[in-house]
Formats: sequence, structure tokens, C-alpha cells
Amino acid sequence: MSDAFLPFEHVVIQGVGLLGASLGMAIRHGRLAQRVTGVGRAGSRSVEIARERGAIDEASTDLAAAARTADLVVLCAPVRQFPAAMRTLAPALRPGTIVTDVGSTKAQVMQWALELLPAHVHFIGSHPMAGSEKSGPEAARRDLYDKAVCMMTAPWQSGTGSAPSAEQRAAFERVEKLWQAVGMRIMKMPADVHDRWVATISHLPHALASTLASVAGREPEMLDAAAGGFMDTSRLASGDVDMWTDIFLTNRAVVADVLGEFQKELAAFKQAVAAGNEEAIRESLTSAKSVRDAFIARRVALGMSVKGGGDTEK
Amino acid sequence: MSDAFLPFEHVVIQGVGLLGASLGMAIRHGRLAQRVTGVGRAGSRSVEIARERGAIDEASTDLAAAARTADLVVLCAPVRQFPAAMRTLAPALRPGTIVTDVGSTKAQVMQWALELLPAHVHFIGSHPMAGSEKSGPEAARRDLYDKAVCMMTAPWQSGTGSAPSAEQRAAFERVEKLWQAVGMRIMKMPADVHDRWVATISHLPHALASTLASVAGREPEMLDAAAGGFMDTSRLASGDVDMWTDIFLTNRAVVADVLGEFQKELAAFKQAVAAGNEEAIRESLTSAKSVRDAFIARRVALGMSVKGGGDTEK
Repeated sequence: MSDAFLPFEHVVIQGVGLLGASLGMAIRHGRLAQRVTGVGRAGSRSVEIARERGAIDEASTDLAAAARTADLVVLCAPVRQFPAAMRTLAPALRPGTIVTDVGSTKAQVMQWALELLPAHVHFIGSHPMAGSEKSGPEAARRDLYDKAVCMMTAPWQSGTGSAPSAEQRAAFERVEKLWQAVGMRIMKMPADVHDRWVATISHLPHALASTLASVAGREPEMLDAAAGGFMDTSRLASGDVDMWTDIFLTNRAVVADVLGEFQKELAAFKQAVAAGNEEAIRESLTSAKSVRDAFIARRVALGMSVKGGGDTEK
Repeated sequence: MSDAFLPFEHVVIQGVGLLGASLGMAIRHGRLAQRVTGVGRAGSRSVEIARERGAIDEASTDLAAAARTADLVVLCAPVRQFPAAMRTLAPALRPGTIVTDVGSTKAQVMQWALELLPAHVHFIGSHPMAGSEKSGPEAARRDLYDKAVCMMTAPWQSGTGSAPSAEQRAAFERVEKLWQAVGMRIMKMPADVHDRWVATISHLPHALASTLASVAGREPEMLDAAAGGFMDTSRLASGDVDMWTDIFLTNRAVVADVLGEFQKELAAFKQAVAAGNEEAIRESLTSAKSVRDAFIARRVALGMSVKGGGDTEK
């Protein structure tokens, strides 16, 4: 394995929202591909905006046509559009083409790839943990992926694939180097471990933020008094509804399990509060604080941002 | 009522942590008092740090002695220390002295004031919705209160006091003008309404952040993959444990009620996810997003910050 990054010849990015357009910017800025094509839906303005913003070299609305010359295709559309995209790609891709994605769940995605893509292409699962409550190519930026984590799943890690060939391993390494080249730290894991982790650190927070906003919204006047704590805890509720509906649907059993664990812990805390059990309240808050403080200390040690997400002015 | 702010002669701030020291800075910066005394516990370094940082003119560890010449006393210690402070103040205060606080619950505080302070002083309940997950005079800053909301409760609004005298109304107005002078927007309400509102917009988010951190902390390795969403949603879990234990204990019945409402809403969402009920998931996320987006738009319209809280490097 050489340490030098060998640029891709032709990268096709399907879906040029926040993640896709930001990836295009990072690839073009780092000269990681000779050509980047963004594919959007017919009639959507996104792909034109992405081109105007310099995120892609050329715009297309025909995935099959664009992908014919690709050596890398990155699926950046909402996860539930993946099966249709894979069906479109299957007859178009040259042998040896690498396909990866930025989807937030992995077990379902790896399964679709196994069923829908031909054996002569290499599907590598990627989940860059980068994003924003903002969406669309207007919000894209070339440093979106910098200093964030990318979780990667190979077919042979997911329990559904067979032992890897040298070519498959090489494909995995090329994708890994691409993410590293845009600034990411790689964590490799099986699809089921990935899905359990993200259910806890990503999907659960989203469910909490959303439910918090719903409860507070019953009496909108009180929101006039809300401060930074409410603003930050509820931030994810402003996220893209389509994307998050997909995420919850494609990871539903695991999310339901994790929500169940959260419900138990919250019920215990509520019980302590209702009973005025000072020791139990204090112990619960102390233990949570030590987890949170250690998390922040670790991010600082890794050079990752500890700035809050914030909101754009609307 | 004159619109000009008449400075206080001698303001005593009991407790010079983040809130107390920041208030001292704002008062001194705005020349809103001729003299500011900070009172800390004997043996604590806080009051010296507050003086070194210019938050107070003079440091004391004797509340009664300091308060004898005060025309305003502000209780900035954790809420559960209020009864002891009020007992100490009761024989020391001159008639007409105004006492206010920055406590996060109001029904219990107003009740303590009614029972423990003499009738010849005026207790006005204040709750400035400003803070940080940071604590201590080291984190104080003079603009902490700027553009935030201060909720105020008068004894005659709390249902426990009698009709106000002209002097009581004047005392309320002086405290109101002080908060306005440090940049705050005032919302006046009865203590029970205040406690229900803050249970929803402040204590509930704290309980969620803390419980989220506890659940994620069961498998610390996964926190290496966590991103900005987890960081923001869990931010409040890094808050001061003593202060928050007090808050939950002094508002426990209302917090338990609100947690119950949240539990119902979360159970419905979990049910929708487990069943793969796309319409229910989408409707829930859409409705929450509209609440959150309206909240941010309103903050922007009011000139309030929409920047995330962020964390200090530790």
C-alpha cells in the first residue's frame, strides 16, 4: 500500500445537498479527482447551485450516463433513494468501479448493495459524522468533513459478504484515503455495531431534540423566555425532515431499543426528582457530567471542534 | 415613574460564581451602583478571584455585616442556601432594603422570603435566563445578561402576598430597571407560571442532556465517533452539579409533571419508529421543526444570539 493518494479519474456524486456538495468542494479543493460530476433530480435547482458554488465540475440529471465513466460513485442522496440509485447504476458501472455512500445507517445499506449491485463493483460503506441542521448546497462548505470521524464498513465486516479479495481490500483503502484526504479520522466496524452506535450518539439525540421542541411548542409563549440551554438541546429538531424520516425508518429496530434504554434511565431520574431523593439526583448528574466532560476533553485532545453548532439567521 | 436609572448606593452580591460575578461586572461597568460588595464563603477563593477580575469593589465573608449598609442585596448562591442567607439577613437589613435573587425556581423562593424576611424589606423574585455550562468567577463576563430574558415575580403576583404598597411597586420597578440596564428583556409572571415554564424550557432540557450522556457513557468507545449533534444535545450535562441538584429539588413536583408529558410524547415517537409508521414519524419531525424554526426566527427578530453555547477547552 502506497501512502501517496492517487487521484480518482472521475467521481460521480449522486445528490448534491449539504453532504454531497461539501464533498465535491473538498475533492476539488484537494485535487483528489480529475473530474467531479454532480447528479441531481430533473427539475431540481440543487445541481445548478452546486455548480455555481464550485462544488462540481459538471451537472447531470442522468445517473446512469454520468456513472458510465466513473471510477468512484458516492451516494449522497437520502438513504431511502439508495435502492433506486443502485438499480440504475447496476447495468451502467464498469467492472472495478468503487461505490460508497454517506448514509447514516449501514446494515440496511450493505444489504441493498449486496442484493442490487453487480459482483464486479466494490461497495464500501461510509458514514462521515459531519453535518448541520442546515441543508442544501447553499450551506455546503469545503471543510465540513475536516477533523470529523468517518465510520467505514466493508462487506466482509458486515457478516453478509464473503472473504475479501485483494482488489476489494484495495478498493476499501482508496475510499479510506479519500476520507483521510478531506481531513477525516477513520473508525472501521461491522454494520451492526455502527447502527447501534449511531442510534445512541446521533438518532437518540435527534429524537430527544424533536420531542423537546414538540412539548415546548404546546405553549409557544414560554419559548420567549427560553435561553441557550433550550436552543442547543433542541437544535437537531431543525434538521431536514426527509433525511431524518429515512434514517429512523432504516434503523428502526435499533433506534427503538436505544429509546427503550433511554426511557428506563429517564424514568429512574424522574422517580428520584419526584421523591426528592437528593443523593440519587446528585449521583445521576455527577455521573453524566463526568461522561460529558471526558467526551469534550477527548475532542480537545484530538484537535476536534468543541464549538456549538449554532443556527443560521432565517 | 422616571425613566432615568437612579444608581444604588451599595449593592451586596451574595455568591460570586458565574452569575454573581458577571452581575458585579455589569453593574460596575454601567455605573449602576456606587459600591459593590461580593460575599463568599469563608475559605473559598471565589470572592478573591471576583475582586481580582474587577467584578466587585470589595470582598467579604460576613453577609450580615456587609448587608447592613446595603440598599440592594442580590442572592446569587445556589437556591438551597437562600433560607440560611435570609435568616442571616433578616436582623441586619435596614427598612426599605430591596432583596432580589437569580434563582431558577420561584414558588419556593417567594415562600421562603415571605416566611423569613421582615415585612420592612422588599423581596422581588428575579430569574435571569442567562448562564453557561461553565461556572465560577473565572467564567464571568460583563455581557452575560445582555439580550437575555429576565423573568420577574412580585410577592403580589405569587398568590402568597397581599396587595402591594406604592413602596413595594417602586422597589419592583428599581429591580426591573437594574435588569434592563444590564441589557435584559423583562417578562413578569406569577411564581407558579414561572416554575412550569422553566421546568419545560430549562429543567427538562437539562434532564434530557444528562440522561443522554449517561446512556452513551455505558459504552465510552462510541463517544469517539460522536459529532456536533451529540455535543450540543448533551451540553447541559456539563453544568454545575450542586446548582442543578438544588434546582431539581426546589421544583420537583413541576419537573416530574413535565417529565411525564415528555415521556408520553417520546413513547408515541418510539411507537411510530418501531412500527415503521412513516407518516407519524414525518408528522412528528415536521411539527417539531416548525416550533424550533419559529423559536430561532423569533430570537433573531429580537436581536438575541443564535450562536451555540460551545464548550471551553478543558
